[in-house]
Amino acid sequence: MINLYTWATPNGRKISIMLEELGLDYEVSPVDLGKLAQYSPEFGAISPNNKIPAIVDTEPGKDPVVIFESGAILTYLAEKHGQFLASSGQARYTTFEWLQWQTSALGPMLGQLGFFAVRSQEKAPLAIARFTEEADRLLNVMDKQLQTNTYLAGSEYSIADIASYAWTLAATGYLKEVLKDSLATKPALHRWLQTVGERPAVQRGMAIPQI
Amino acid sequence: MINLYTWATPNGRKISIMLEELGLDYEVSPVDLGKLAQYSPEFGAISPNNKIPAIVDTEPGKDPVVIFESGAILTYLAEKHGQFLASSGQARYTTFEWLQWQTSALGPMLGQLGFFAVRSQEKAPLAIARFTEEADRLLNVMDKQLQTNTYLAGSEYSIADIASYAWTLAATGYLKEVLKDSLATKPALHRWLQTVGERPAVQRGMAIPQI
Repeated sequence: MINLYTWATPNGRKISIMLEELGLDYEVSPVDLGKLAQYSPEFGAISPNNKIPAIVDTEPGKDPVVIFESGAILTYLAEKHGQFLASSGQARYTTFEWLQWQTSALGPMLGQLGFFAVRSQEKAPLAIARFTEEADRLLNVMDKQLQTNTYLAGSEYSIADIASYAWTLAATGYLKEVLKDSLATKPALHRWLQTVGERPAVQRGMAIPQI
Repeated sequence: MINLYTWATPNGRKISIMLEELGLDYEVSPVDLGKLAQYSPEFGAISPNNKIPAIVDTEPGKDPVVIFESGAILTYLAEKHGQFLASSGQARYTTFEWLQWQTSALGPMLGQLGFFAVRSQEKAPLAIARFTEEADRLLNVMDKQLQTNTYLAGSEYSIADIASYAWTLAATGYLKEVLKDSLATKPALHRWLQTVGERPAVQRGMAIPQI
């Protein structure tokens, strides 16, 4: 049984979507970021970077597998269950490319944009301009890729799409006012958001944790 | 033969170090970021995010394999050659954890700190404070991990160390003035930097590209 440590954020939703796609039974341990529960010694023992998500996968007769970092968890689950990641060849590494692109660029840069443009009361115009420009550049890269591919890594739905969905949705929701000019010109991105968002497992995963 | 598209940056050096560790023959195609060569149509066809590094691996009788994103390239090379990444079990996913931690957190946050605290002429104190604090937090996480492990993912040198070396070296060089208080209290991190830095392949990889 997998225990998922998560909260209601795009990074947390990557893993609940993946677990729903795989049809696995799992338990949810909410880590209340509003109460700084990610800094508790218990959670720090599982996730030494004090970030959600993390999982503990316990099977009878085996040592539990403990993993933090959403990209590592997605890779583990894909390899264990043989889904959403090709086992070899260009398709495998194209999926890793776009997974890494999400975890190293789209996620961190939209996250910083959210802080500087939305959450922070003090305003730093230099930072708002920098992260707005970079978010626009990244959404352009994504839209261009989706103009010639159904999914981020090609013709198959993969962990790259699962990693990118909740963050891209945040760009059209939480960050909508900041990114409206960028979003107005990206039909392929909106088509992909709708296709992925219609998947029942994605809808179930986006409702986790129930708080 | 592998063709490495790179420049004299921490992300580029990850791959030249890896290729030197594997003892592979490879060609180097410098992508001059100072001349914005990453935005050329030729390079964009290889790396649609317009960032270095990228590789093209050409073998007789096979389709070339084309990969961008340093984390994806390291994973490809590790799996192709069966080195620096366990093939299964907790050790494999602990390596992916710390690889993802580097590509999604240490790299992007030190990169932003470099922009706001060093490169930008206009100063945004809010951004400098935010990224200095986050860099300090990340270096603490790294030091704590290295207090009880020889290498980032445990007892074995892995692609997580290869990914982290040049960025951590930048923290002690390029970012030294900003991070000196943080660096003064991290003996395990300095021990790891020395151990990794003494590897001949790391020294050779850090000298690529020759420009």
